[in-house]
Amino acid sequence: MSYNNEKIFVQGWIRNCRFQKKVFFINLNDGTCLKDLQIVCKENITIDFNYIKEKLQIGAAIYVTGRFIMTSDSVQPFELLASKIIILGTSSNQYPIQPKKHSRTFLRQLTHLRLRTKLFGAIFRIRSSVCQTIHNFFHQEGFFYIQTPIITSGDCEGAGELFQVTTLDLNQIPLDKNRHVNYQKDFFGKKTFLTVSGQLEAEALALSLNKVYTFGPTFRAENSHTTRHISEFWMIEPEMAFYNLQQNIELAQKMLQKVIQKCLEENIQDFEFLQQHIETQLIERLRTVVHLKVFPKITYEEALSILLKSNVKFENKIFYGADLASEHEKFLTEVYFKTPVFIIDWPIKIKAFYMKNNLDNKTVASMDLLVPKVGELIGGSQREENLDVLMQKIKDFNINRKELEWYLDLRRFGSCIHSGFGVGLERLLIYMTGIDNIRDVIAFPRVNK
Amino acid sequence: MSYNNEKIFVQGWIRNCRFQKKVFFINLNDGTCLKDLQIVCKENITIDFNYIKEKLQIGAAIYVTGRFIMTSDSVQPFELLASKIIILGTSSNQYPIQPKKHSRTFLRQLTHLRLRTKLFGAIFRIRSSVCQTIHNFFHQEGFFYIQTPIITSGDCEGAGELFQVTTLDLNQIPLDKNRHVNYQKDFFGKKTFLTVSGQLEAEALALSLNKVYTFGPTFRAENSHTTRHISEFWMIEPEMAFYNLQQNIELAQKMLQKVIQKCLEENIQDFEFLQQHIETQLIERLRTVVHLKVFPKITYEEALSILLKSNVKFENKIFYGADLASEHEKFLTEVYFKTPVFIIDWPIKIKAFYMKNNLDNKTVASMDLLVPKVGELIGGSQREENLDVLMQKIKDFNINRKELEWYLDLRRFGSCIHSGFGVGLERLLIYMTGIDNIRDVIAFPRVNK
Repeated sequence: MSYNNEKIFVQGWIRNCRFQKKVFFINLNDGTCLKDLQIVCKENITIDFNYIKEKLQIGAAIYVTGRFIMTSDSVQPFELLASKIIILGTSSNQYPIQPKKHSRTFLRQLTHLRLRTKLFGAIFRIRSSVCQTIHNFFHQEGFFYIQTPIITSGDCEGAGELFQVTTLDLNQIPLDKNRHVNYQKDFFGKKTFLTVSGQLEAEALALSLNKVYTFGPTFRAENSHTTRHISEFWMIEPEMAFYNLQQNIELAQKMLQKVIQKCLEENIQDFEFLQQHIETQLIERLRTVVHLKVFPKITYEEALSILLKSNVKFENKIFYGADLASEHEKFLTEVYFKTPVFIIDWPIKIKAFYMKNNLDNKTVASMDLLVPKVGELIGGSQREENLDVLMQKIKDFNINRKELEWYLDLRRFGSCIHSGFGVGLERLLIYMTGIDNIRDVIAFPRVNK
Repeated sequence: MSYNNEKIFVQGWIRNCRFQKKVFFINLNDGTCLKDLQIVCKENITIDFNYIKEKLQIGAAIYVTGRFIMTSDSVQPFELLASKIIILGTSSNQYPIQPKKHSRTFLRQLTHLRLRTKLFGAIFRIRSSVCQTIHNFFHQEGFFYIQTPIITSGDCEGAGELFQVTTLDLNQIPLDKNRHVNYQKDFFGKKTFLTVSGQLEAEALALSLNKVYTFGPTFRAENSHTTRHISEFWMIEPEMAFYNLQQNIELAQKMLQKVIQKCLEENIQDFEFLQQHIETQLIERLRTVVHLKVFPKITYEEALSILLKSNVKFENKIFYGADLASEHEKFLTEVYFKTPVFIIDWPIKIKAFYMKNNLDNKTVASMDLLVPKVGELIGGSQREENLDVLMQKIKDFNINRKELEWYLDLRRFGSCIHSGFGVGLERLLIYMTGIDNIRDVIAFPRVNK
């Protein structure tokens, strides 16, 4: 069936207009895809030609009926010959999004309007696709989607600064007899925070439902003004009963490859736009990752040895027990391997208490996936399933065990090996879009003053 | 291909054991489905029969290899004849989840273990299915999945009590020269809260990407101990450019029906279990909803008139301008219509400022979907797209306009009719499972002290 000459209607926003004496052209976009529809208006239009012409400002919303015309032009394979135009919502010359290049810094002040630009439209259609593909991937792999709590009572991860959540009147803080804040009077009767990770709760549910994943917001109150950090971001945290570290690694690779592959299929126009304007080799870079059979995997010690042998003068010292700095990650993944690379078996002391001790009693069965442009994209581990070892680690890490009795129950009753990892959604988007600032891949970024 | 006599391995948790002299039976469950696998152990097992027998406690995690045997029994169509059993994680007689009926009140104290019961396993597999189906539905309908901010700076909805988010040290609150809290020193340089709804931001994105939906947590710091309220819950909020109220209503009905239909297909065993133990007519009730052509739709005024004519003695007075009380909702949806029912065109004053004024200047183009068992399940409206009317409403509602200038921009530049609604995930689950307490359909309920 050919749509040529079919009568149709469209609604959307004016991206641009070109006026000639007896004809004018409108680029109309309804947000659903990158490309505009060209609308051709000739004098035979049923509304006053000059009146309409005046109202057609960039950003206005219009309703158009007309005939769909197939053209022989391959760049513009069809257009709409308008018979009627209705102005739904006018615009004005105050409209800040004009058909020219705006800096991303400027657009960051206009979060409510910036998705109307080609660039941000592309980024956020891809973001949606990434999210929906992730859900779809886990569904097909037999995972249950769970929600872990946002308001929590502790920082067991030791992941950094926390946001406090309270209903106390800060102008009239109730005090206890020691003149400290009386949290008995707070909403939950204790001090509460925003979550930094849903992992511990996800473990409880994996040891009930087998394979689960979270998809939700997490928070860090870090005073950081880098292009990689943000106070509120979204995390995906799968957690699997009966999985060891190697199975965990294979799942992470499979997830990443499937997500990239599917999103490239669904959003190729948007990726092409990004390739044209943001990163020249973007699509090829992503395709290469999809086709990799196995991502390289090295131990932390091997990573140190590669770095030491590199003859590069790093600013940060390399020694056993030090975390890798950004420059080290960059070297390993961008210069040495030129692909994503798993670093496994990290020293016990620089990783979280819940990670499984290896037999060497020096390292844990953990993995970080480093990728070019981003550095650490995924962090995960096998979890310590042995009750005695875990209790000792809680002690060694100076963590309040009372808060974790429920977590220890998971090792008291039907413990089993299990593993999981966390992916930062925004970091994944930086990786997939080539955009270099995390504030440009989340709709309403939350950063400190 | 027949699996009969195939050698397989399974891993899972012991739900129950029955011992006879030379044989014993284990009910094993790995969390992925309701039904247990029966494992038959005879003396020819490769590990010491008596040793194993001792370790086989309810809740222990085991690994079993053996042969898959098709039986002629229809209740138990297959079983596993064990050749080897490995204890992965022991249990003890302290394990609180025993093969007997536990009260849900008791299990609410054990949120980390309760999903191991048949009942909570069923509820949370259905919950996962509902969530994944919702994503799938919106994806197929061409919606973009967006994330609106969790930390916000105002309560434009007037939806109720807010949780404050802060990094100030509550033992040492910094004061300004008027001896008030100096929010300049807080993390964001101003007072911030947890979101009650992502709708206003969703509107901005719908007017960029056309059709969008959120799926995220929202918060109410209400001191409420009902079975319907909770402080942290999940909401789905679709928002559509160029949709009027009627299209909004049709989408809400379609979504509800598709979700129910798909989840019944995917989780029939779990629904059958709920039907057996929670609500005798559950599946029929849900199927009836799926097959309804059009949900009844009445105006608020018609609802009042039905209530007044009912001759029922309600505790809460019925008069124009009053919100419907729970007893009224119950009567309309459970007694009068016996189906879901849309109530539209509510008085301006009892609905939010952003809803579109009808031509009568008395009511707004809003809709509530009431359903049996729950009352209000969905609330939505067409949004006021006229700048002047909206500014007047902001004034009438005594809302600080300065905080909403960005929102007004959406009406200044390319405004168009648009609509949306919100669904409370946990209420939807109450409706779909027959469970009567909201704390039993969210994994880790957050309620005030």
